[in-house]
Amino acid sequence: MDLAAYLQRRRRLVDEALKRWIPSEDAFPFQVHKAMHYSLFAGGKRLRPILALAASDAVGGLIRDVLPLACSFELIHTYSLIHDDLPSMDNDDLRRGKPTSHRVFGEALAILAGDALLTEAFHLAARPDLMKGVSPRRRIQALWHLARAAGSLGMVGGQTVDILTQGKRVDAATLEYIHTRKTGALISASVAAGAILGGATARQYRSLQGYGEKLGLAFQITDDLLDEEGEETKLGKAVGKDQSKGKATYPGLYGIPESRRQAEGLITEALHHLQSFDRRANPLRQIAGFILKRTH
Amino acid sequence: MDLAAYLQRRRRLVDEALKRWIPSEDAFPFQVHKAMHYSLFAGGKRLRPILALAASDAVGGLIRDVLPLACSFELIHTYSLIHDDLPSMDNDDLRRGKPTSHRVFGEALAILAGDALLTEAFHLAARPDLMKGVSPRRRIQALWHLARAAGSLGMVGGQTVDILTQGKRVDAATLEYIHTRKTGALISASVAAGAILGGATARQYRSLQGYGEKLGLAFQITDDLLDEEGEETKLGKAVGKDQSKGKATYPGLYGIPESRRQAEGLITEALHHLQSFDRRANPLRQIAGFILKRTH
Repeated sequence: MDLAAYLQRRRRLVDEALKRWIPSEDAFPFQVHKAMHYSLFAGGKRLRPILALAASDAVGGLIRDVLPLACSFELIHTYSLIHDDLPSMDNDDLRRGKPTSHRVFGEALAILAGDALLTEAFHLAARPDLMKGVSPRRRIQALWHLARAAGSLGMVGGQTVDILTQGKRVDAATLEYIHTRKTGALISASVAAGAILGGATARQYRSLQGYGEKLGLAFQITDDLLDEEGEETKLGKAVGKDQSKGKATYPGLYGIPESRRQAEGLITEALHHLQSFDRRANPLRQIAGFILKRTH
Repeated sequence: MDLAAYLQRRRRLVDEALKRWIPSEDAFPFQVHKAMHYSLFAGGKRLRPILALAASDAVGGLIRDVLPLACSFELIHTYSLIHDDLPSMDNDDLRRGKPTSHRVFGEALAILAGDALLTEAFHLAARPDLMKGVSPRRRIQALWHLARAAGSLGMVGGQTVDILTQGKRVDAATLEYIHTRKTGALISASVAAGAILGGATARQYRSLQGYGEKLGLAFQITDDLLDEEGEETKLGKAVGKDQSKGKATYPGLYGIPESRRQAEGLITEALHHLQSFDRRANPLRQIAGFILKRTH
């Protein structure tokens, strides 16, 4: 299969769904909707929704039964970027090559747009006119995974420790905590939610959960590596900014070669969890390889 | 019935449930959990959860089937207060007689605590080990009401217009928009969600929805009146601060007597919606009266 074409197709599917299901830019009050759209359609890769769809595909699920909640993951990812960029947080001016939300709309609207995107994620996940093919019990389960991964024991917890340790020495356990929670939790939950909505058996679910967990941590390590090594123009943000902010990173703690070795080990483990799956899991396999290759 | 004793009993029930179901203050990362607890247990009246429980009672529902989602409303209400108080929003130093979250924990943690409370609301509403007596379909419906009321077409929309019109003249339609969305939406949704989870018939649901809508707007008008007239010590916040900030209020637009007349009219309409209910709706009736009496 051609991964690039696959990713592009899926990305378009997600973009169209988001446009269809989120209040339009002209909906009143348009200022907050404009700010939501600005960040939501700023060129994101849609990795989390694509993973949810791919996990559902791997167990024979239908796209229409997963797509709304898949989009919810992108809404939560986007809100987290807006709030992370705020002056009192990472104080970033640039995101994906564009001025950050608070630079364009001001701090108040950036906070409100983030709040609205976070809320919209659950609104979309609970819409009574969508996902009718899934049992309500599975829907609640999937929604619970989304909420748990995004909350104070997940993503918000990771961001809290990230903010509180800036400029301080952190040990390996703390760094792994930040990475598994701040980025890993949502990535891994997107796979779990896709599996649940796709109708996974208990055994399939456990395997996909294992895949998602390894992939989530590997993704953040490769993100650190990209920040260290990547080309500025490719990333659309300043390179080396994690280090200059005194942020804990894998390359900072382990060095580049060892960080890459760890990422490779995690991807191998992730792939191992897919062994019992047939070719319908090929997208998941290729995405794992793709995440590793980003840094080469 | 003794309303004061009833409200106290229900408030204690909600407080205990929140303590049981929210991560403890000592849970890692404790800074964000301390900030969540600080605002959550700052002496709130628990009006929204109490309304959800009372709406369920009115149709013969069980407390255990409503209590988690009832608490979700309080979590969302609390997050909205933390974010509204931020320097870039209302820039308030005092809330319920205590320093606001960002004054105690700093802006970053206040934002994160708000994000975490908002997320926790949906996490709690979707917990697989709770509310087992309710059909998953009704749970999703109730959760959808919560999300819709809190989002960019509800509470966040109201806050957006509130922030954007500060210091400007607003017309009656805009003022009603702000009030119905910023406060009314969540109050009215708490009644709707309680009705759904309590097992309301379609007819009962429509009546309770009517009650909730009128009550929600009446509550915000009486809140405006309190801000204008109330004693500072009773409120735990500065009196007259809405006007000094150039915020649109009902007394500012209509004067105090006409505002009070409108609130009375809305409460009468709210009570009218309860006509077909038996004595199990008495708490809802008395709460409506209580909201009006706050200003006398």
